Amino acid sequence: MAGGGQLARMTQQAAIGLGVQLRVLTPSPTDSAALVVAGAVLGDERAWADLAAFADECDVLTFDHEHVPGEYLRRLQSAGVIVRPAAEALQHAQDKAQMRRSLSAAGIPCPRFALVADADEAAAFGASLNGPGMVLKTVSGGYDGKGVWLTTPEDAAGCGAFDRRGAGDSPLLAEEMVDFELEVAAMVARRPSGETAAYPVVESVQSDGICVEVLAPAPTLPPAAAAEARDVAVRIADLLDVVGLLAVELFYTTDGRIVVNELAMRPHNTGHWSIDGARTSQFENHLRAVLDLPLGDTSPIAGPTVMVNLLGTDHPDLYSALPSVLAADSDVRVHLYGKRVRPGRKIGHVTVVGSKGADLAVLRQRARSAADGLVGGSDG
Amino acid sequence: MAGGGQLARMTQQAAIGLGVQLRVLTPSPTDSAALVVAGAVLGDERAWADLAAFADECDVLTFDHEHVPGEYLRRLQSAGVIVRPAAEALQHAQDKAQMRRSLSAAGIPCPRFALVADADEAAAFGASLNGPGMVLKTVSGGYDGKGVWLTTPEDAAGCGAFDRRGAGDSPLLAEEMVDFELEVAAMVARRPSGETAAYPVVESVQSDGICVEVLAPAPTLPPAAAAEARDVAVRIADLLDVVGLLAVELFYTTDGRIVVNELAMRPHNTGHWSIDGARTSQFENHLRAVLDLPLGDTSPIAGPTVMVNLLGTDHPDLYSALPSVLAADSDVRVHLYGKRVRPGRKIGHVTVVGSKGADLAVLRQRARSAADGLVGGSDG
Repeated sequence: MAGGGQLARMTQQAAIGLGVQLRVLTPSPTDSAALVVAGAVLGDERAWADLAAFADECDVLTFDHEHVPGEYLRRLQSAGVIVRPAAEALQHAQDKAQMRRSLSAAGIPCPRFALVADADEAAAFGASLNGPGMVLKTVSGGYDGKGVWLTTPEDAAGCGAFDRRGAGDSPLLAEEMVDFELEVAAMVARRPSGETAAYPVVESVQSDGICVEVLAPAPTLPPAAAAEARDVAVRIADLLDVVGLLAVELFYTTDGRIVVNELAMRPHNTGHWSIDGARTSQFENHLRAVLDLPLGDTSPIAGPTVMVNLLGTDHPDLYSALPSVLAADSDVRVHLYGKRVRPGRKIGHVTVVGSKGADLAVLRQRARSAADGLVGGSDG
Repeated sequence: MAGGGQLARMTQQAAIGLGVQLRVLTPSPTDSAALVVAGAVLGDERAWADLAAFADECDVLTFDHEHVPGEYLRRLQSAGVIVRPAAEALQHAQDKAQMRRSLSAAGIPCPRFALVADADEAAAFGASLNGPGMVLKTVSGGYDGKGVWLTTPEDAAGCGAFDRRGAGDSPLLAEEMVDFELEVAAMVARRPSGETAAYPVVESVQSDGICVEVLAPAPTLPPAAAAEARDVAVRIADLLDVVGLLAVELFYTTDGRIVVNELAMRPHNTGHWSIDGARTSQFENHLRAVLDLPLGDTSPIAGPTVMVNLLGTDHPDLYSALPSVLAADSDVRVHLYGKRVRPGRKIGHVTVVGSKGADLAVLRQRARSAADGLVGGSDG
């Protein structure tokens, strides 16, 4: 696995069970996954020499993130390295313009979009929408609300998206602002053979562009919309020939449509609930998919599951409140990533799995209370 | 953790979640746990110098097995190392004569027993029992049927227990052969404060002295007997001041009594079902107990769970049948220990977790079928 963040760390839990020897390439011995795998290879997974030497020692190369240059992956593939997902698929998670073109061409519902070189082009596109506003995004590299600006045609120049841009910079992606009721995510694992296993569609509760809470399955999404979201994810996985896990973030619009927002081709934050709440975790199914093993049952093990992210605050110590949090709720599942606490950084998550028919409001309250306790560092 | 077998390996899965940096002392880099922890310390956990140097780098010292000499642990404790369970508790898992004496003195039901130096003493004790036979055991070091002889007073000399013994050897433990209906196990985690969390009592199906299958909760054990077994485990944990996990193997006799067979003070084979089947695994609760964190909910996450051990056969490759086994059952949970296959060796286990009210016979058949497929190496 190229990259040693928390996704690689949690993949190790699944690899241990399957008897798979997980190797990780990551810059620092204190990276989240380097702390928990044997012999992490220290190096820059975005640098050719480090990547090529690492790939040489692996049976299959897969990823903790989408930032390994596609050019390097194509070179490895030409040299016979098994890269999953392959460069041709992964580029759709690396390049949002490419993603929009491929999906739209296949008739998969996306927001209206255009590539814009400057504020004037953005304003012109925005004016054509006749909508409440528009979104500007960098084509690559954005995450957790970074590289995304919510604006209007009138404010395109002043919103910050075009600040400090040089002449050679890529255009931005301008998109219609979708009027949505819910943000949901559909996750599907896919093997080289085309076998897929789709997880229940979940609701992703966002704050400032960051996922703060996931409800699995999505409690208020109508069943027909959930089926459509799941179907869209499987269609995209087939269309792009994804091998491994595909996470599709979607909008459920106020007028009842399902529209694709973002893609990722790896285990995803909206799938963390599956470690405790599903019969097979997303991490295990990612491994099974990239190793070409039959996929595991994706259904819930019990009732609904609530996952709440731990986002760092000014309080530096995630462990001081652990005793009081665990004492307050003997059935909250705590996942800490071994990362240094920084304000806003994802440093862990908590999960509460309910019995069938459990009261979702109570589960949410329990998960939120545990998360607040941990990041706040209170001991009461 | 001193020792790097599969128990340490599975403890790592729990440590990753809790954000606990698990260190392991074990002789070889290919030991089961050394394959999956960062920077395993290579050394002999039963040798003073290696153990002392390792303990110096740990906040708390705990164990993958009971073979670290008590004398060394007492020395570490005197030097201020936190050892959990402490030497004074652990000696009852290391010395079966000591265990029988302490438990019997506290009125906890045990088989009648005596220490015997030779076959004549064994025969005399056996004749006093007026029972169907007797059991001879080495006082320490036995496991999985090794160091245990089932015999009669008449055959004590010829059963092999006294073969190749020198003049300075310890006496053997002679015990009444208990006429039992079921072998069951009760597991309890206990913190330094005395807080305990007891797991549902399970049935352990044995073959030739080796646990081959575990049914959780024990399906045919009467509720009153299950409550008694659980109570006995908690009483023993309190009596011996155990910190960490205590596993008590018990007989449910044909006349309806609960009688203690063996103890272990660590995660135990009869608790492996809890990884997939319980709300908190035995590995996590062992960590929580030795780190003095509040204990997690021990109840089943769904319905009954069946665990079947993978015992090595002549077929050397555990992976060749993985595709067919996973394809045949998308909801069997596979746990491979990364160990070389040797006939009879425990090299992994499989678990099937049923929904509430699931048919146990079907679950057992599914688990058995997966296990047979994996160890047999068939591809069909």
